Amino acid sequence: CARSLLRFRSFGMSSMNVESKRSLDSIRTPAFVIDLPIFQRNAMKMQTKAKRHNLSFRPHVKTHKCYKAAMFQTSEFAGNRKIVTSTLAEAKYFSEHGFEDILYGVPIDVRKLPEIVDIRRTCPNIHFLLDNQTVLEQIEDFAKKNDAVFSCFIKVDTGYHRAGVDPEDEDAARLVLNVHSSKYITLQGLYSHNGHSYNQTPGDVSAIQRIADEDKTSIVAFADRLRKLGVTIKTIGVGSTPSCSVSEDFDGITEIHPGNYIFYDRQQAHIGCCTEDDIAVAVLSRVISHYPSRNKILIDAGGLSFSKDQCESGGFGKIDGFPDLVLYKISQEEGMISHRDPSKPVPFDKLPIGLALKIRPNHSCMAAACFTEYHVLDETNHVVDIWKPCRGW
Amino acid sequence: CARSLLRFRSFGMSSMNVESKRSLDSIRTPAFVIDLPIFQRNAMKMQTKAKRHNLSFRPHVKTHKCYKAAMFQTSEFAGNRKIVTSTLAEAKYFSEHGFEDILYGVPIDVRKLPEIVDIRRTCPNIHFLLDNQTVLEQIEDFAKKNDAVFSCFIKVDTGYHRAGVDPEDEDAARLVLNVHSSKYITLQGLYSHNGHSYNQTPGDVSAIQRIADEDKTSIVAFADRLRKLGVTIKTIGVGSTPSCSVSEDFDGITEIHPGNYIFYDRQQAHIGCCTEDDIAVAVLSRVISHYPSRNKILIDAGGLSFSKDQCESGGFGKIDGFPDLVLYKISQEEGMISHRDPSKPVPFDKLPIGLALKIRPNHSCMAAACFTEYHVLDETNHVVDIWKPCRGW
Repeated sequence: CARSLLRFRSFGMSSMNVESKRSLDSIRTPAFVIDLPIFQRNAMKMQTKAKRHNLSFRPHVKTHKCYKAAMFQTSEFAGNRKIVTSTLAEAKYFSEHGFEDILYGVPIDVRKLPEIVDIRRTCPNIHFLLDNQTVLEQIEDFAKKNDAVFSCFIKVDTGYHRAGVDPEDEDAARLVLNVHSSKYITLQGLYSHNGHSYNQTPGDVSAIQRIADEDKTSIVAFADRLRKLGVTIKTIGVGSTPSCSVSEDFDGITEIHPGNYIFYDRQQAHIGCCTEDDIAVAVLSRVISHYPSRNKILIDAGGLSFSKDQCESGGFGKIDGFPDLVLYKISQEEGMISHRDPSKPVPFDKLPIGLALKIRPNHSCMAAACFTEYHVLDETNHVVDIWKPCRGW
Repeated sequence: CARSLLRFRSFGMSSMNVESKRSLDSIRTPAFVIDLPIFQRNAMKMQTKAKRHNLSFRPHVKTHKCYKAAMFQTSEFAGNRKIVTSTLAEAKYFSEHGFEDILYGVPIDVRKLPEIVDIRRTCPNIHFLLDNQTVLEQIEDFAKKNDAVFSCFIKVDTGYHRAGVDPEDEDAARLVLNVHSSKYITLQGLYSHNGHSYNQTPGDVSAIQRIADEDKTSIVAFADRLRKLGVTIKTIGVGSTPSCSVSEDFDGITEIHPGNYIFYDRQQAHIGCCTEDDIAVAVLSRVISHYPSRNKILIDAGGLSFSKDQCESGGFGKIDGFPDLVLYKISQEEGMISHRDPSKPVPFDKLPIGLALKIRPNHSCMAAACFTEYHVLDETNHVVDIWKPCRGW
């Protein structure tokens, strides 16, 4: 339609004729492919949800680390595109591509403050996470010496127990009060990542909902307590892909920051927060040998294409078109496919040497990070663009 | 000593004064560091072993993908440096850095033959693996049309059951005979990788020895059978790091091709083919937050630095200087450290925020592949060089 054509153009998509478009078969393997129609559907669905709930939308871009992907992801918020990044390299890259509001989503190391100062030249709204009093003092010391003012979110642990202050802990409120009264750092709000919603019973959407509710209740209660102490909390941000996909209750929340949903993957389908048809990406790999006596097939992609993330669905990826087969083992650059039922024969005739297979990864963030380019496919599996992500730290 | 100084110079090591050398503390984290003295010891030990047994030496360079590393690795074989690579990108890169004999160690896909032709311009001794009659016919077809002659090793499965012909199978001998009689492809010899020696009982060196013996017996018997059929088998190559580290019996073998031994890692130490002091590499990561109430520490390296490989020793890496602590969980860019005994306190005072930790990875090949540069350290933990590996396919 005209609208999506317009979007293509504005995001710098190459305008290729159907005749000149490369087919799947022409792609050198291993490769990372994005099914654009599914990707766009995922992008639009989450933005629509954020708007429906009147939420600020700040997707986590660590999943793809690519500005063209993030442009789609934030298309409904043009002019004030907010994102979270997992590295300073991403923060710098996205600032140079015009993103207006960037949160570096890892507790800051004071050695990295000069880079924050540098990024702020292109993106004044650059923030970082803080969850420690010692670090606050180091930041203030740096800011004083360098005549700088920084901006932070307080990282809150609402149950994942990775990073973040414990909202029940009195040190937590004290840290926020100290930021609130600091001349050197501005408080944006609170930020939590309920990553434990990733590890739920297959298809038990109610468990994801329960974690989303606990997360929300915990962070909103903390914000209320802080407000009573006179602290202005502009933003209360929560989210992980499972909770943002499943929940429709964001009462008290002002911002969401899911990331993986833009690609989804087998793990997300396994826990029930998307279907397998929502997985927008695949590792493209070729059949390179047949072993009829062992009932096995060799492909040219391994751990450096899929990463080593496991999934309870079994194996290292879902093979499009061959639901009965399993990618049961991977080494660095090779993968081994067999039948799920070892007593049944692998259909070698349907898998000739040279055939390119689309294999949906267990964990799309880790698989995408293996590649320096993504092949973007239309609904007919033709290449419409090549996206180059940012890498490193 | 003068000799190692000479080696430094000839491999293009920067000649830095002690005063100008950067300390460990100045390295931006996460980073991948190589302890040069351990690395050199590993490099020399395996070369000495190959020479002692009068073996051709062809290390697998997939572990580091870096020519400076491979120069050390093959220093005793200057003038005829043989290597195995895991990608064609590596094969091309190493050919451009003067390596004289390169085996692309994955069964060839006929679509990649034009690249082999290209690499042969800089490295006439470029070979690939073959284990399938259909592929042989595709190669012959390509060679005929392009007036080319290729060179291959037959990949033999001696028990790992990844790639390779089954030497007991009569199709296997038939394939070798067909290569032997082909005008378009030269037979170099046989190649096996006994990768199942990686998965042994902790410290059970006799199990590794048994696999090495079975591997050797199987491939030598196959070679004997082929020789009786009139086929010239110049090279019989075996090896994996465990078997090449442990075995002293290479009777009938002409070449070894271990790879991981140059770095070693926790998995190798776990199965007993090296000690933890032989691990030459580490992920360097900083303490970025303390959580006394949860008895945990956060570091700035995660799955994109360590990879997700597990090890039965527990956790995702061994933390130098803190044997009682465990890197028990990693997410994309963060790692969580706790005490092995949850009832005991983490010594926060010994792990101040900002402290750089050397963490030995479970699987060094996968961890190294996460980085675009390696910091090379001398025995005082000062940076003596930066090595840039090859990436992609």
